[in-house]
Amino acid sequence: MFEIKASDNKTSARTGSIRTAHGKIKTPFFMPVSTKGTVKYIDFEELKKIGTDCVISNSLLLYQKPGLKLIKKAGGLHKFYNWDKGIFTDSGGFQTLDEFFKQKSTHDGVYFNSPYSGKIELIKPEDSMNIQLTLRPDIAMCLDDVPLHNDNLQTTRSKTLTTHSWAKRCKEYHDEHNYEGKKRQLLFGIAQGGMYKDLRKKSINFIKKQNFDGIALGGLAIGESIGTMFDMIKTSVPHIPKEKPRYLMGVGSPEDLLKCISLGVDCFDSTFPTQNARHGTIFTWNGKLKILNSKYKEDFSQLQDDCDCYVCKNYSKAYIHHLLKINEATGKKLASYHNLYFVQRLMEKIRQKIQDNKFEKFKEDFISKYKR
Amino acid sequence: MFEIKASDNKTSARTGSIRTAHGKIKTPFFMPVSTKGTVKYIDFEELKKIGTDCVISNSLLLYQKPGLKLIKKAGGLHKFYNWDKGIFTDSGGFQTLDEFFKQKSTHDGVYFNSPYSGKIELIKPEDSMNIQLTLRPDIAMCLDDVPLHNDNLQTTRSKTLTTHSWAKRCKEYHDEHNYEGKKRQLLFGIAQGGMYKDLRKKSINFIKKQNFDGIALGGLAIGESIGTMFDMIKTSVPHIPKEKPRYLMGVGSPEDLLKCISLGVDCFDSTFPTQNARHGTIFTWNGKLKILNSKYKEDFSQLQDDCDCYVCKNYSKAYIHHLLKINEATGKKLASYHNLYFVQRLMEKIRQKIQDNKFEKFKEDFISKYKR
Repeated sequence: MFEIKASDNKTSARTGSIRTAHGKIKTPFFMPVSTKGTVKYIDFEELKKIGTDCVISNSLLLYQKPGLKLIKKAGGLHKFYNWDKGIFTDSGGFQTLDEFFKQKSTHDGVYFNSPYSGKIELIKPEDSMNIQLTLRPDIAMCLDDVPLHNDNLQTTRSKTLTTHSWAKRCKEYHDEHNYEGKKRQLLFGIAQGGMYKDLRKKSINFIKKQNFDGIALGGLAIGESIGTMFDMIKTSVPHIPKEKPRYLMGVGSPEDLLKCISLGVDCFDSTFPTQNARHGTIFTWNGKLKILNSKYKEDFSQLQDDCDCYVCKNYSKAYIHHLLKINEATGKKLASYHNLYFVQRLMEKIRQKIQDNKFEKFKEDFISKYKR
Repeated sequence: MFEIKASDNKTSARTGSIRTAHGKIKTPFFMPVSTKGTVKYIDFEELKKIGTDCVISNSLLLYQKPGLKLIKKAGGLHKFYNWDKGIFTDSGGFQTLDEFFKQKSTHDGVYFNSPYSGKIELIKPEDSMNIQLTLRPDIAMCLDDVPLHNDNLQTTRSKTLTTHSWAKRCKEYHDEHNYEGKKRQLLFGIAQGGMYKDLRKKSINFIKKQNFDGIALGGLAIGESIGTMFDMIKTSVPHIPKEKPRYLMGVGSPEDLLKCISLGVDCFDSTFPTQNARHGTIFTWNGKLKILNSKYKEDFSQLQDDCDCYVCKNYSKAYIHHLLKINEATGKKLASYHNLYFVQRLMEKIRQKIQDNKFEKFKEDFISKYKR
């Protein structure tokens, strides 16, 4: 299922592919976030043009709207989206960090305030698996109980243990109800452990024993310092067996992608590129460009020299500056398109550089240029 | 400049072309509204794919932001937009209907509350011409003093007279400062007259004597009844010389386009298709489709049978229903794209039917199907 084609000799980076019901996804890869059925401002035909291999949606939000019945009738998420490449769904555990959604979690599952029905609903690990098996993404994620970055040891331990018990229940239910053969849905486990190294290790070690198709690090990039985040990743990754895809949830800045890939991470998702775009931060090979800055008001050059995305080929910094200044949707769309295109080109280069054993130098050159 | 290729023998419809600095625009035509530099949710590359020949921007809003200096430096609006087809600019007289903008109008010009600077500014007819000559659209519009649909006779007469005096000043300034030869900017006059037939006739007769490149009917579709609107159009159009393009400002519903074309109108602009799209009204050959209606929740067919726009080719009613229900920008964009595509195909068919002398039947068939 997961094949490593090449490993870098100076870092822990590796490149390969994950075989899914919708073809192979080359690793390492970055997924744009199609939370409720679309990436913000960008449609699936545009994602195809950008060269996107995989997206991630939120199973819990899709379960609430448009609902399972509809997606089942559509023939699954791929049909609903008209997208024949990879789809992950998150369990929605992440949404439990949102005060608005979460009522409480118990050993049974997660209690949610549904934003649509207004009712409190219990989602058990088995429910989450049933939802994701019905939505039919290529890769499902276990339901997890995400500790906050500032939870104390006791709370973090308790939530991590709940995550473990749910992981077992998810695996059991999923194994029993999964599709057969080529249609088999993959299931990734999620390790927690908060900001406690010991708990992180224990969690990885527990999760890896359940024989998931891949292992994710959850509960990171949620408000802790960047140093703490990297400490947790460095502590965790070496404990994940080499033959499993490693997925770091919620990370998507160009620098962090490179750093995490050098630590051995294979999969990423984040709203970072699109959210930054909407607020005027443009990714370029020379670093972040704050397009709303007045120095770009009269700059008629393209966002990034040599970028051949349709935004760069057709529009100037001055034009996008203007559209974002007056809060036009078109501006948000053009900026989002460029940033997603940039990240996909970055990931392509990274895969090539790992294969050529030139990843470390590439990473260092990129970061030093990007920071300047 | 304006060439009539064919006239329908049963109605006053005609088809031809207007020669501009950016090529010929086939008439009758419909312009999407790129008020402040973009059509809402749709970029210029998409407008090209839709087959759009001309857009209209608001010169007054562009004058305020991004400002004349910038557009001049860009090389004019076409360069700023990366658009080599037709551009009209409205003087911004229409904006004077907006309480927020208008301070007052006197014989001198219009006093505006600038939404950006917060200051009160006087725009004289000469200023409006200077702004539009600097922005460099293909076709500029005179500054007009637009009566409200419910203004009394005295106020309407006074504003109409002001419009006339400004029209003369605009023409004089424009003639003196216009570009030469192929780069010559066209200038259209605007007739007012409110909802008073007599005043409408007088206004047309005044405006037509100034020898503008085209004549527009202003101050319609601003809150009056549809019957009154058509009365005013029927009263006005026969007084516009046949050899001048006739422009009805602010009309864009499929039915109204057909009806007005049969009365002899050649040019239209309106936010109607995109505004309707964003609120869930989709145009089809079988009438308006209210996509937010629950009956489309599980309808996996395309918005319009046989429509080959990229939205119809790729997405279902159910998907667009979902996106608009959850207020996603992508839904607004997809719906807007389809409606603009629909209107452009409608205009193409209309031009063909006029040429084939089959316009009246086409119009009647369309309207009876559309209303059903």
